[in-house]
Amino acid sequence: MKHLLSIDDLSAADITDLLDLTDHMVEIGQRPIPKVPALRGKNVVSLFFEDSTRTRTSFDTAAKRLSADTLNFAVSSSSVNKGESLRDTIETITAMGVDAFVVRHRSSGVPQMLTAWTTASVINAGDGWHQHPTQALLDCYTIRTGLNRRDGFDGLTVAVVGDVKHSRVARSDVDAFAKLGARVILVAPPTLLPTHVETWPVEVSHDLDSVLGELDVLYLLRVQRERMDDGLLPSLREYSTCYGLTAARAGALPGHALVMHPGPMNRGVEMVVDPGELPGSVILHQVANGVAVRMAVLFRLLGAGTDLKGHA
Amino acid sequence: MKHLLSIDDLSAADITDLLDLTDHMVEIGQRPIPKVPALRGKNVVSLFFEDSTRTRTSFDTAAKRLSADTLNFAVSSSSVNKGESLRDTIETITAMGVDAFVVRHRSSGVPQMLTAWTTASVINAGDGWHQHPTQALLDCYTIRTGLNRRDGFDGLTVAVVGDVKHSRVARSDVDAFAKLGARVILVAPPTLLPTHVETWPVEVSHDLDSVLGELDVLYLLRVQRERMDDGLLPSLREYSTCYGLTAARAGALPGHALVMHPGPMNRGVEMVVDPGELPGSVILHQVANGVAVRMAVLFRLLGAGTDLKGHA
Amino acid sequence: MKHLLSIDDLSAADITDLLDLTDHMVEIGQRPIPKVPALRGKNVVSLFFEDSTRTRTSFDTAAKRLSADTLNFAVSSSSVNKGESLRDTIETITAMGVDAFVVRHRSSGVPQMLTAWTTASVINAGDGWHQHPTQALLDCYTIRTGLNRRDGFDGLTVAVVGDVKHSRVARSDVDAFAKLGARVILVAPPTLLPTHVETWPVEVSHDLDSVLGELDVLYLLRVQRERMDDGLLPSLREYSTCYGLTAARAGALPGHALVMHPGPMNRGVEMVVDPGELPGSVILHQVANGVAVRMAVLFRLLGAGTDLKGHA
Repeated sequence: MKHLLSIDDLSAADITDLLDLTDHMVEIGQRPIPKVPALRGKNVVSLFFEDSTRTRTSFDTAAKRLSADTLNFAVSSSSVNKGESLRDTIETITAMGVDAFVVRHRSSGVPQMLTAWTTASVINAGDGWHQHPTQALLDCYTIRTGLNRRDGFDGLTVAVVGDVKHSRVARSDVDAFAKLGARVILVAPPTLLPTHVETWPVEVSHDLDSVLGELDVLYLLRVQRERMDDGLLPSLREYSTCYGLTAARAGALPGHALVMHPGPMNRGVEMVVDPGELPGSVILHQVANGVAVRMAVLFRLLGAGTDLKGHA
Repeated sequence: MKHLLSIDDLSAADITDLLDLTDHMVEIGQRPIPKVPALRGKNVVSLFFEDSTRTRTSFDTAAKRLSADTLNFAVSSSSVNKGESLRDTIETITAMGVDAFVVRHRSSGVPQMLTAWTTASVINAGDGWHQHPTQALLDCYTIRTGLNRRDGFDGLTVAVVGDVKHSRVARSDVDAFAKLGARVILVAPPTLLPTHVETWPVEVSHDLDSVLGELDVLYLLRVQRERMDDGLLPSLREYSTCYGLTAARAGALPGHALVMHPGPMNRGVEMVVDPGELPGSVILHQVANGVAVRMAVLFRLLGAGTDLKGHA
Repeated sequence: MKHLLSIDDLSAADITDLLDLTDHMVEIGQRPIPKVPALRGKNVVSLFFEDSTRTRTSFDTAAKRLSADTLNFAVSSSSVNKGESLRDTIETITAMGVDAFVVRHRSSGVPQMLTAWTTASVINAGDGWHQHPTQALLDCYTIRTGLNRRDGFDGLTVAVVGDVKHSRVARSDVDAFAKLGARVILVAPPTLLPTHVETWPVEVSHDLDSVLGELDVLYLLRVQRERMDDGLLPSLREYSTCYGLTAARAGALPGHALVMHPGPMNRGVEMVVDPGELPGSVILHQVANGVAVRMAVLFRLLGAGTDLKGHA
């Protein structure tokens, strides 16, 4: 495994293997000194063309726990803005000695494109509407631990609710959940469903209330306010009325069901109830697991030839 | 001691204890390799809603000398600006594994508020006009070493000069100096004195020249230029004439008196003379002591169960 | 050697000594863990008044490979912008404990000025049109390894092509190449030649084609687009026609000749051919060597009393 670009590139066994490795990383995070020398001397460069303090911080924390050096390449003040081609920038940073790029870009396919220009590993931290594979892995890990399902997701029903059309999180999650055996229901108004949804391994519903009772996992997507400007959403209030998680809807979920959200939440829109008062909310577990999953990914890509203690 | 929010929360004995610990930190800073493993694996996050390169750099240097990892949470590009609530942001960063937040905010009370939302320690690095406790500690340490007063400040006279009303430095310093036994004189025009000054443990003067001869410490506050727009200051020139430290005024101080300023200085306004030519100026000692005091605070909050060598 | 301000301050022997040390740093960079403890506990502060992600990243990587702590002093949000004098800012950062400043400024002479205000070492990372000494050192190292010339550059012919007048790279490179014994030809239109070029240790040509056949090294400078606004360049197309490296010109170079550029390149202007297809292009070697040369400079300035393993 040289890069992590898309859940497409992973088999169910690959995913399970990364989740097993994540167990070790969680254990490391619980030690008094939550740090191992595994990736000492490795250089991990964040290259975020779209701001995301949350995701960048998570990768940064993961890299530091493995003793890698991290470098935040400030795109806004870089030569990319002096007319240098992206290719020249990537080749230049590579020549300085980089082991992995963590890339976010608003265009789908940019992380893939980078792999042609660098000898370093490339990790897709979100590209356009396309993929956000570490989000899917941390979501799988959260379901696996939250519902005690080390053996896969056969028999689980997961609803992914909201703006599926413009969501890389949804694309990655649906792929991963389905690969592990879950039944996935997309719940969204027709304007926010992807074209060719019939080719996805999912069922579709426009009625959240009718599916709540069958769910093991309710996964709420973030509503992008700019979708209203596009005319795809009549109003946040109407969205909230039809698709928001209210106390009444939370009460209609089975008692064991998990409530998940990739963050940042729009309280009062897709999240009407206070998730802190939902016993099934694992939203902060997702965040915590994010660090451990990213440690697993970094170690799998860069740790060849060393064990977690940094021994050759 | 879990948080450091205000000098109010500290007794004279607590302050003295932190200053004693600072002695060790000063000694570490003088070693060829000024670094100890005490806080290895601890994660200190700076969360500055107001820019302050100076204070942030000081905390960052302190954390690194104790081998903690540091992370600068860029508020401007974070989800706080995507409509996420501050509470959700704090809970999210906490879930990633943070041991201490170092917080600056323009509203009084924000650091206190944060303590309800995180299991991490919170250090107030300045909140509105309220408090800046590490500044007060470093100022106490500078007086204690500069005047050789390990036993407290009984019998010392300290003037705090300038815009006391809008100054968190003044509030913190006055509390701390008074707790350690000093006599404190506020020197300011009536418009820049706090309301209810009669409840403060201080004397008040409007005439700097009349008190100079009795001072052991002259503490100049920074003049905020925006106070003139508020109509609280007629002009910088008039301020300077009445309250600025000129060579003549410096000459009227007792020979042993210290001159202090929290920085950054307005040369030509509150600081007319070149402090580099005043034998009593300890302004750069304040800066150097700031790193050591912040090491002491970080170690006191996060070092439970380890010694300075990082042994359990 | 306390500071590195200008190639002027170095003799040919000093340069050779730094290049010899760079050999060790290259070897360290090729290890599985490319990191040595030599500068543990040292604090290197970047102070970039002009943005340069490329140069800053190179110094940062160099410092981390030597285990120094690095701190990026954000000029834009610092007290320099609150009216604090540069001198007070430098004295303040120095008081926090800094071992070296890496400075870039658009005015010539600022790094020199800083040396009066700090006990730390100062490394000039580019000042105005004046100097960029580490660029010259990495260029020398690239020629020395690319042409196998450990003994100096006697008998080599180097052309420096483009906007010499406004280029600190050209000033530094010409000095260094000439000191090591090379014959240097400046190739530029008269408007882009420095005044008093007759005092430089160079020959001058306005005709790139006439010199290509004699070159061991073709060094292309970056064209600054703002020169056209100044009326010094008629158009980028005309510049490209006369001075750009086309495939035809590349074919007219001797087979062993090196093609160099300090980056970032303007493809289609000074670099018309794709350098990835030129066997003689060592542009990415320059970047890689930049990290090693900066390690050598940092170690020479800060490593007194330790070997590369960090032993006293």
